[in-house]
Amino acid sequence: MSGYFITVEGGEGVGKSSNLGFIESWLREAGKDVVMTREPGGTALGEKIRELLLDAGQNNMMVDTELLLMFAARAQHLEEVIKPALAEDRWVVCDRFTDATYAYQGGGRGVDFQRIAQLEQWAQGNLRPDLTLLLDMPVQQGLQRAGRRSAPDRFEREQQHFFERVRETYLIRARQEPGRFRVIDAAPALEQVQQQITAVLSVLI
Amino acid sequence: MSGYFITVEGGEGVGKSSNLGFIESWLREAGKDVVMTREPGGTALGEKIRELLLDAGQNNMMVDTELLLMFAARAQHLEEVIKPALAEDRWVVCDRFTDATYAYQGGGRGVDFQRIAQLEQWAQGNLRPDLTLLLDMPVQQGLQRAGRRSAPDRFEREQQHFFERVRETYLIRARQEPGRFRVIDAAPALEQVQQQITAVLSVLI
Ligand SMILES: Nc1ncnc2c1ncn2[C@@H]1O[C@H](COP(=O)(O)OP(=O)(O)OP(=O)(O)O)[C@@H](O)[C@H]1O
Ligand SMILES: Nc1ncnc2c1ncn2[C@@H]1O[C@H](COP(=O)(O)OP(=O)(O)OP(=O)(O)O)[C@@H](O)[C@H]1O
Ligand SMILES: [Mg+2]
Ligand SMILES: [Mg+2]
Repeated sequence: MSGYFITVEGGEGVGKSSNLGFIESWLREAGKDVVMTREPGGTALGEKIRELLLDAGQNNMMVDTELLLMFAARAQHLEEVIKPALAEDRWVVCDRFTDATYAYQGGGRGVDFQRIAQLEQWAQGNLRPDLTLLLDMPVQQGLQRAGRRSAPDRFEREQQHFFERVRETYLIRARQEPGRFRVIDAAPALEQVQQQITAVLSVLI
Repeated sequence: MSGYFITVEGGEGVGKSSNLGFIESWLREAGKDVVMTREPGGTALGEKIRELLLDAGQNNMMVDTELLLMFAARAQHLEEVIKPALAEDRWVVCDRFTDATYAYQGGGRGVDFQRIAQLEQWAQGNLRPDLTLLLDMPVQQGLQRAGRRSAPDRFEREQQHFFERVRETYLIRARQEPGRFRVIDAAPALEQVQQQITAVLSVLI
């Protein structure tokens, strides 16, 4: 694969979606052919799987089921969108990817990281993001930002300690893979967050 | 686990569903506490996943996605229905199970059996059926039986050579695990099929 694969990660309300448009414009101005996408979802079938995953009415979903559904959506997304785009030398920017599975299902729900790694290897082979932007900020502030929105989905209903473990897991992963991760302080105003993102992208190009 | 786990397998239209009621009555008369279920599905969430899997409108589902969805429904089914029933000493009779994944996705679609085995181990640990009744008959006859019904789903649309590979895979598995499998000749009239099933069940009890 000769394109470039960027993922944007972080807990609830840290500003992942808010910064995607900025990243897209910035890369386009730098002359890159960009594909914007998101997980879970990213394909028609993946969005249907996403509906099952986020449906707050599902209060009996087993954690193994959740993981397999996540990777089902991801497998479809990889084959239908991500791999073809990378093969055409395009830049793929994805709102959440497998690090979110480690953070939410592993850190949050307590699934053994080793079991997640097995599915990651099964579904992705050796494909990993080239760069992961981790937007990090205190959990409470992120939840306040996110709270301004509509009814909570199946993940947003979780308690603060769940999201503390999500944040911690992201930070541990960033420390373990410093070559791939860049941690962005997501707490300040949007322009300051964007300055940090610009600094990271500028080094790439 | 101290219950007993029976699966009923075979290609399209061989009479799996037709014989379930007979098996259920026979086991009940033998004094067993029986749970009847089916795959994919078997739970409310599993039935939703089943809908995605069988939807003939999905003509772009990747084979890895299909496999992960199958095992997502299975994981839910195992945790919600099968394992609790076995733990209560009940007899579980399931219309299709993991052998169908080997037969359809492995034999039919050509997925490496080793990849299926990895997911089987991931999702089931060491849980396997105690007894598998394989209803076997020539593909063409089974398709004729099944063809009397409604519009074909996403699997039923496949061609005959697909179903030949399905049948062949089932038979190979039966040969590899003679302790677990009993092959039933499904071609004759229902009463004769049921006599064979009775002969197998009688040995158990
Ligand atoms: N730097 C910022 N300062 C203040 N508010 C912000 C900032 N970034 C985003 N917001 C606001 O916070 C809210 C959440 O942002 P956004 O939806 O981008 O977060 P997210 O990380 O995509 O959340 P989710 O995890 O729910 O997808 C939005 O209302 C957004 O306008
Ligand atoms: N031994 C038999 N002789 C003749 N017809 C049969 C016999 N067994 C079943 N049938 C008929 O064949 C058709 C298919 O049977 P059934 O639905 O039980 O098969 P199945 O294996 O469950 O199929 P599927 O794979 O589609 O679930 C039904 O119309 C049923 O009445
Ligand atoms: Mg978002
Ligand atoms: Mg049937």
